[in-house]
Amino acid sequence: MTNLKQLGEFGLIERLRSRLNTRSPRVKKGIGDDSAVFSTRPNTLQLTSTDSLIESIHFDLKTITPKQLGHKAMAVNISDIAAMGGAPYLALISLGLPTSTSKKFIDELYSGLQTICNSYRIELAGGDTVASPKHLFINVCILGEACKNRVFYRTGAKPGDQIFVTGNLGDSAMGLGILMDKNKNFIAAKHRNALVKKHLEPTPRVKESGLLAKSRLKVTSMIDVSDGLTQDLGHLCAKDKFGANLYEDSLPVSEALKSACLQKKHAPTPWVLQGGEDYELLFTIKPEDVKNLKRLFLKADSFVSHIGEIAKSPKKITLIKRNGSKVSLKPATGFNHFKRK
Amino acid sequence: MTNLKQLGEFGLIERLRSRLNTRSPRVKKGIGDDSAVFSTRPNTLQLTSTDSLIESIHFDLKTITPKQLGHKAMAVNISDIAAMGGAPYLALISLGLPTSTSKKFIDELYSGLQTICNSYRIELAGGDTVASPKHLFINVCILGEACKNRVFYRTGAKPGDQIFVTGNLGDSAMGLGILMDKNKNFIAAKHRNALVKKHLEPTPRVKESGLLAKSRLKVTSMIDVSDGLTQDLGHLCAKDKFGANLYEDSLPVSEALKSACLQKKHAPTPWVLQGGEDYELLFTIKPEDVKNLKRLFLKADSFVSHIGEIAKSPKKITLIKRNGSKVSLKPATGFNHFKRK
Repeated sequence: MTNLKQLGEFGLIERLRSRLNTRSPRVKKGIGDDSAVFSTRPNTLQLTSTDSLIESIHFDLKTITPKQLGHKAMAVNISDIAAMGGAPYLALISLGLPTSTSKKFIDELYSGLQTICNSYRIELAGGDTVASPKHLFINVCILGEACKNRVFYRTGAKPGDQIFVTGNLGDSAMGLGILMDKNKNFIAAKHRNALVKKHLEPTPRVKESGLLAKSRLKVTSMIDVSDGLTQDLGHLCAKDKFGANLYEDSLPVSEALKSACLQKKHAPTPWVLQGGEDYELLFTIKPEDVKNLKRLFLKADSFVSHIGEIAKSPKKITLIKRNGSKVSLKPATGFNHFKRK
Repeated sequence: MTNLKQLGEFGLIERLRSRLNTRSPRVKKGIGDDSAVFSTRPNTLQLTSTDSLIESIHFDLKTITPKQLGHKAMAVNISDIAAMGGAPYLALISLGLPTSTSKKFIDELYSGLQTICNSYRIELAGGDTVASPKHLFINVCILGEACKNRVFYRTGAKPGDQIFVTGNLGDSAMGLGILMDKNKNFIAAKHRNALVKKHLEPTPRVKESGLLAKSRLKVTSMIDVSDGLTQDLGHLCAKDKFGANLYEDSLPVSEALKSACLQKKHAPTPWVLQGGEDYELLFTIKPEDVKNLKRLFLKADSFVSHIGEIAKSPKKITLIKRNGSKVSLKPATGFNHFKRK
């Protein structure tokens, strides 16, 4: 089988280019020059972010297919644009490839990247392909755009603001648990597949972000949940100036997670609070907008949960349990890249 | 000594942020949210590019200091913006760090990044710091801006257009040769240092690119010389539709390279033609603009050489030697990441 050493860098770039559909009229030049060239729209602000996935740190090629890896590398970057109220439109990719990487692997990786880019109308406008001595890595840099007065930052929430989150939480962490578990058959295949899929093929919440951005709702802060609800909620508490109350009964738990927890004899709540890589949108709105928000999401057939409110107590995130008792949560219990091992 | 494992990801991001001076009014939000947020200027086109440097492939920590590494990682990206006629303004950095990396190393790396960013007024607006299982890598994504009608692409040159290059060629390749040579004392320290510096601390030609962009000269194509003159000149030959003549006598050779070649008993010309990582600007202009170009560069005290012209012969790059004889050059003799080993 042909591998990269035989194909060479220029063969590889040509191979990638031939698979890309340049369609966006705003991109004047994509792959094939020193830089990509593009125009921006009036009355917008530009958004940009970058995220790397490293073999053996963020993924294991035994449990993720190249196509899923392509999807995920792009999805986590798209999520960062969605978390600001923006729409993504352009991406650059740096690939670090061991020379033994097969053409088939590359083709499948790019198929994953291309499929998700097509779904969100993102143009792959360039990148860098380099040899990597041992481990594969993929770095995506993404660009997005938002209306000038509809960019949602992490800071801005005030006590009394109501906290919402899209989708379900904890599924991705349980999905990772299942991938690492020798006995995968402890739950029904349907539930297992749903949880694993949430981990390997997350859906960035561009649609929901667009609903908020296009509305007149007073969104006071937003973040995507990548390090776990408790930790990411900490970022919305105005650099620890405020705290938050969360209602256990309102936290979104999927049937699949419930089933897995039942079999494992785990309580679902810690998975919901601390599980990372959910890529759901966590945001706050003014109390007077709660009804309108629920109506908007219902009409769009998008799932959103009203899970709590910002509180005056600095640094304190309180979980109000089903029985009315209160538990203080430690924000710093999410994912930390360098303390993981 | 504190290392990353003890510092943790959030400690690291805080550490980097505390060292950055946010100064550009166009950047509404730098490090510290899901995306950076910035505005663009009217009547401009945006430019973006990305480049990775990988330990043991692109650099050896035995021969480059962390500060030089920071400089170089940014310089090669700036060069891609300069090659389009643009000015850089914002950068994102992804760092893949082995957990054993010391804080001192990071501080010096960022000092290198910060110094070059200050020189070119580039804002470090975000990035990603991740653990890397073994090798260090640094990926930069850069954004730049150019006037709408003054973006210089690789394609556009026609037969008769005159070829110019900034600075000297071949120094960087010889500098790398010296770094890898056990006997470094074959030339005078002054020359050795100049050659090594060109390899480890290249100067991106933003000033010269700006001269061209702000002028009314008919620049018909441009590229930065990263893979060697012959190979990069191939890209200006309209996808091999045309060829080029180069005059050996006009090729820019530094005193340092001449001295090194004399000692090594090498001819300098192959170093000039095939040496990579020069990061000089190679461009073509209409013949009627030659005088004006020379005057412009002289006035700005910038060094430029008139080295040849685009020719009708497809795919053929001809070197006209000092004695008048002609040699056909093979374009594909530059650097290829995957065929190197």
